[in-house]
Amino acid sequence: MSGRLDIVGLGPGREGLVTPEASAALAAAAAIYGYGPYLARVPWREGQARHPSDNRVELDRARAALEAAAQDRVAMVSGGDPGVFAMAAAVCEAVEQGPQAWRGIEIVVHPGITAMLALAARLGAPLGHDFCAISLSDNLKPWPLVEKRLAAAAGAGFAMALYNPISRARPWQLGRAFGALRAVLPAATPVIFGRAVMRAEEHIEITTLGAADPARADMATCVIIGTAETRVIARPALPPLVYTPRSMPA
Amino acid sequence: MSGRLDIVGLGPGREGLVTPEASAALAAAAAIYGYGPYLARVPWREGQARHPSDNRVELDRARAALEAAAQDRVAMVSGGDPGVFAMAAAVCEAVEQGPQAWRGIEIVVHPGITAMLALAARLGAPLGHDFCAISLSDNLKPWPLVEKRLAAAAGAGFAMALYNPISRARPWQLGRAFGALRAVLPAATPVIFGRAVMRAEEHIEITTLGAADPARADMATCVIIGTAETRVIARPALPPLVYTPRSMPA
Repeated sequence: MSGRLDIVGLGPGREGLVTPEASAALAAAAAIYGYGPYLARVPWREGQARHPSDNRVELDRARAALEAAAQDRVAMVSGGDPGVFAMAAAVCEAVEQGPQAWRGIEIVVHPGITAMLALAARLGAPLGHDFCAISLSDNLKPWPLVEKRLAAAAGAGFAMALYNPISRARPWQLGRAFGALRAVLPAATPVIFGRAVMRAEEHIEITTLGAADPARADMATCVIIGTAETRVIARPALPPLVYTPRSMPA
Repeated sequence: MSGRLDIVGLGPGREGLVTPEASAALAAAAAIYGYGPYLARVPWREGQARHPSDNRVELDRARAALEAAAQDRVAMVSGGDPGVFAMAAAVCEAVEQGPQAWRGIEIVVHPGITAMLALAARLGAPLGHDFCAISLSDNLKPWPLVEKRLAAAAGAGFAMALYNPISRARPWQLGRAFGALRAVLPAATPVIFGRAVMRAEEHIEITTLGAADPARADMATCVIIGTAETRVIARPALPPLVYTPRSMPA
């Protein structure tokens, strides 16, 4: 039999933000693979096997799921959207490097709400015009390339979202990133730290590039950097709205 | 009374891709505002007023919804994600320019699946590493800025998604964009046209930057441009997988 692998985006981590199609794909799977904490978010079902794995073993996890999917219907869970710094690329890489039979497995990616768009929604529209998403992890790419991308994006006026800003293994990268951005952008450029966005322990801070302290971020944080045009609208009884205007003067 | 405005992302246009929270917000609204074709996607409810409006009147539409929201619970629908080239920025702009009372309206943005991530999901992971999103509309920004951003993004190795690639009022922009990208990227760089993605009339084409024909796009198309590293994996009985690797050699 030719199997099937559903790669399912769980979004920020609140059940009401998982699409009905994603939930249905999880319900239909004989087995589910994924990073432990993401797997723990999936409602328990009798007779459904679960294979939690550690962080930072994406390729091994992808191979294990593909091996099982060759003869069954299997799901792989991903935080946010599987296509944004998550499991879909690792599965594709495993297929390309793997046995020919894996190219016969039906692979269905179920999109989800990625961290930067959840954070943007909580603020208004800080990514309301041209923007980019950059991972600060230098596990898989050289750090100078990260700095090159930051400078290029800031120089061309993109708003941006920084994924994987900091971790025990990556203590200095966010500080260096702020340094690279300060060389290009005004100190007043809005910077937003969004931790555990749209979950019970959500914490959001709005500051400026000049004042941004890397220590305010952790592994569960997404950082948004505005542009020189990004606006912060104060509201007397509500949190500020932050948006990047749709228009740019000629 | 202090009102509320829910700005709701409808995703690509398939009901199973609307989050449960977005659906609940639509069900709870006394009135719904939005571009006609998006409004038509929302299930009809007795006693709920509907205010469809034309395309390209975002700011007027935002003002009308805010005026109503000052004394009632109102929803505004948006295709895809409201924060990505959609209604959230227009609402924020209207709040900033509008009467002080509008700063007392609770504004809740419900994220949705934006076009580039729906298209990426159908292919594998073409936005699997650092990427950006660029609108080719030069209604609100000067065209040279668009070309500057395209060149900066391509030069720094970002994958990218092009929104609003073409329309009757914007016939030449996509061709010019391909020209700007050809000056920087190899002709073999994968280019994907995704029309009406995840809807009944979906049509997806995988080609290369060298061969890409702007006439293959229309108003309902999102275009993804890979990087020099983006891979296309042929599969005998299934459509190809397209992904941008997570790693870059030092």
